[in-house]
Amino acid sequence: MAVNFPSIDPAQLHPVAGVTLGWAEGHIRKPNRKDVLVISLDEGATVAGVFTANRFCAAPVIVCREHLAKVQASGGIRALVINTGNANAGTGEPGLADARATCAELARLTGLRAEQILPFSTGVILEPLPVDRVKAALPDALAHRDAANWYLGAQSIMTTDTLPKAVSAQVTIDGHTVTMTGISKGAGMIRPNMATMLGFLAIDAKLAQPVLDEMVKYVADRSFNCITIDGDTSTNDSFIIMASGRASLPAITSTADPAYVALRDAVTATAQSLSQLIVRDGEGATKFITVKVEGGADVAECRRIAYSIAHSPLVKTAFFASDPNLGRILCAVGYAGIDDLDVSRTDLYLDEVLVAKGGGRNPDYREEDGQRVMKQAEITVRLRLGRGEAEATIWTCDLSHDYVSINADYRS
Amino acid sequence: MAVNFPSIDPAQLHPVAGVTLGWAEGHIRKPNRKDVLVISLDEGATVAGVFTANRFCAAPVIVCREHLAKVQASGGIRALVINTGNANAGTGEPGLADARATCAELARLTGLRAEQILPFSTGVILEPLPVDRVKAALPDALAHRDAANWYLGAQSIMTTDTLPKAVSAQVTIDGHTVTMTGISKGAGMIRPNMATMLGFLAIDAKLAQPVLDEMVKYVADRSFNCITIDGDTSTNDSFIIMASGRASLPAITSTADPAYVALRDAVTATAQSLSQLIVRDGEGATKFITVKVEGGADVAECRRIAYSIAHSPLVKTAFFASDPNLGRILCAVGYAGIDDLDVSRTDLYLDEVLVAKGGGRNPDYREEDGQRVMKQAEITVRLRLGRGEAEATIWTCDLSHDYVSINADYRS
Repeated sequence: MAVNFPSIDPAQLHPVAGVTLGWAEGHIRKPNRKDVLVISLDEGATVAGVFTANRFCAAPVIVCREHLAKVQASGGIRALVINTGNANAGTGEPGLADARATCAELARLTGLRAEQILPFSTGVILEPLPVDRVKAALPDALAHRDAANWYLGAQSIMTTDTLPKAVSAQVTIDGHTVTMTGISKGAGMIRPNMATMLGFLAIDAKLAQPVLDEMVKYVADRSFNCITIDGDTSTNDSFIIMASGRASLPAITSTADPAYVALRDAVTATAQSLSQLIVRDGEGATKFITVKVEGGADVAECRRIAYSIAHSPLVKTAFFASDPNLGRILCAVGYAGIDDLDVSRTDLYLDEVLVAKGGGRNPDYREEDGQRVMKQAEITVRLRLGRGEAEATIWTCDLSHDYVSINADYRS
Repeated sequence: MAVNFPSIDPAQLHPVAGVTLGWAEGHIRKPNRKDVLVISLDEGATVAGVFTANRFCAAPVIVCREHLAKVQASGGIRALVINTGNANAGTGEPGLADARATCAELARLTGLRAEQILPFSTGVILEPLPVDRVKAALPDALAHRDAANWYLGAQSIMTTDTLPKAVSAQVTIDGHTVTMTGISKGAGMIRPNMATMLGFLAIDAKLAQPVLDEMVKYVADRSFNCITIDGDTSTNDSFIIMASGRASLPAITSTADPAYVALRDAVTATAQSLSQLIVRDGEGATKFITVKVEGGADVAECRRIAYSIAHSPLVKTAFFASDPNLGRILCAVGYAGIDDLDVSRTDLYLDEVLVAKGGGRNPDYREEDGQRVMKQAEITVRLRLGRGEAEATIWTCDLSHDYVSINADYRS
């Protein structure tokens, strides 16, 4: 069902020195599936993250923020623990206690302090976390730790995902090879606002904490914050970059360092691929749609219009049907809330086909040209506003029968 | 498929003195269906309307606004002409010329001025209006004019509607009977922002133009502006109130008149029923959902949260599945964009069942209670914010397989 989802060879996912992954079958919601993952970091790593803007954020998100706030004093983050099957969201004080208890148990088993551990959960909201089962799975996860486990790690964090998601790359900076490998999960409730459901990316470069803090925001804004499946911003969105510091590249202590820019751009490209995998495996997705809005007065209005198009159920069903019913796109532009939008300066392209010019149908537009593009599995909607120089790009998918089936059946 | 859609007896729709309706088969998009309607008003009527906030508003909306702006100078609105099958939106200058030509032709046939006519279109966007076919249908529509034609009128404005929509009522004010009858259409692309796809409501009371101008906004804000099916604000939304002035009730010339308040409230109730018919016949709808947000700091934030719940595809599919996966509702509350929302003061009710209390699961909540309510055809989601005294109510429906089917097939 996934759209042009690349075949991932587990052997091609580079280990990242200083990082190991261990999984367990914790029977959190269903038996006989990997649903607990521990990522361990050697001493000296730096870690930074961005999290959901949802006000009903999950208990583990609150604990992650607390632990990252005291990261310098606590000696640095040394482990991440992730469970699927239960989001530990909408669970109030008991949920917070469960997230803390999970960290405490992993700390006890590893000799770390609880503050050196970041907890993550994903699954059903508003149900108590079966914390005893999570804790019981930890010894098994620790026993399975291996630097070559990235693919198994990607499998261990899946919920409604049909395929594990991982991307790996190497880049040479100043003659030094830097390795980066990441995993992500998510297929529905996807409209990240800070990060996606869950994304974990490790690099072996050494980055000072303030530099990594800045990089994680930069990267998230150009990757996980640019995807949407159904417009639902999850309670648990988290995107984490771990820098193990084991590469030979000298430590990066300033964002003014040219090596920073080179590394940041390489990490951004990897994170974009990783985030696009989520769209390609979007619930029921049959098309991968790029929505590019150009010529806006600022990036915010370009993003607003792009999301208005990407969230319209009518636009999404037209893509599903391969029906060039493209007036629906103009309609979604019109209600995006840009009060001073002059539609007579607006052009709409479908790939290279000019559909609407100056706010009306292009006289030269032929239905068969639109039809040809609509039949493709990958389509770019390009809107030119004629208001300025800003632009924004969003990646999304169509709305199909299977989306309804999957979400009507999710808990059964 | 429609949800508790009341049976409408054409004979129970009261004629409104001074108002006639005439239909025609114009073959605008498909043969052998009523797709052109003319509503004629006797001299002395007042007319007011509200229209879509979509920046890509249709050509007829632009012409309606122009004609209403000069209504006093032109001698008053005397006819409405409506076509289905083509929205005349995204059609630029040629579309405007077509809307004007339709008015001019009807003016020629009736001896009115073009400015005394309001044009309306609904159907596919971005395709040229077949204006010659609309014009050619007008003599037939005029020949069919009859005060008893409200049900046929409701049929003549349907697109993806499965049922004609009409509501009629009589109210006694100061001993005088006032009659009101309205029709509406719409089933998808429904998230009116000023009014709905199309709603026309006639009353036989006499109202001064400024009074009617105020009433139409008041009524729309409490009826058509409170419904949503898919969140898509149409290019053609229009809601019109016509006051023929033929009732024995003395003319209302001030909103301070107690008769104004009585009439306004009666018209609001009728318009609410009319707008709710659109939700009950929503594309693929199997449930009628009332979302009530209470205890907000202001009405705007209550509406924002209510729409966030009502538009969430995950919430809507859970209703379709009768699955009390109610964490999805809290999630939608959390991403509604109320940055200072204190979720620990939030309570969630499903009908009378207290699901979440103080931002977490109510310890006394039992899944079977949620399940029982979720199986009903009509469900009220009630959210208490604990921030103030404001409240807002939105009516919506679920998201089913049939919504996808209908919108993937609409043009075929």
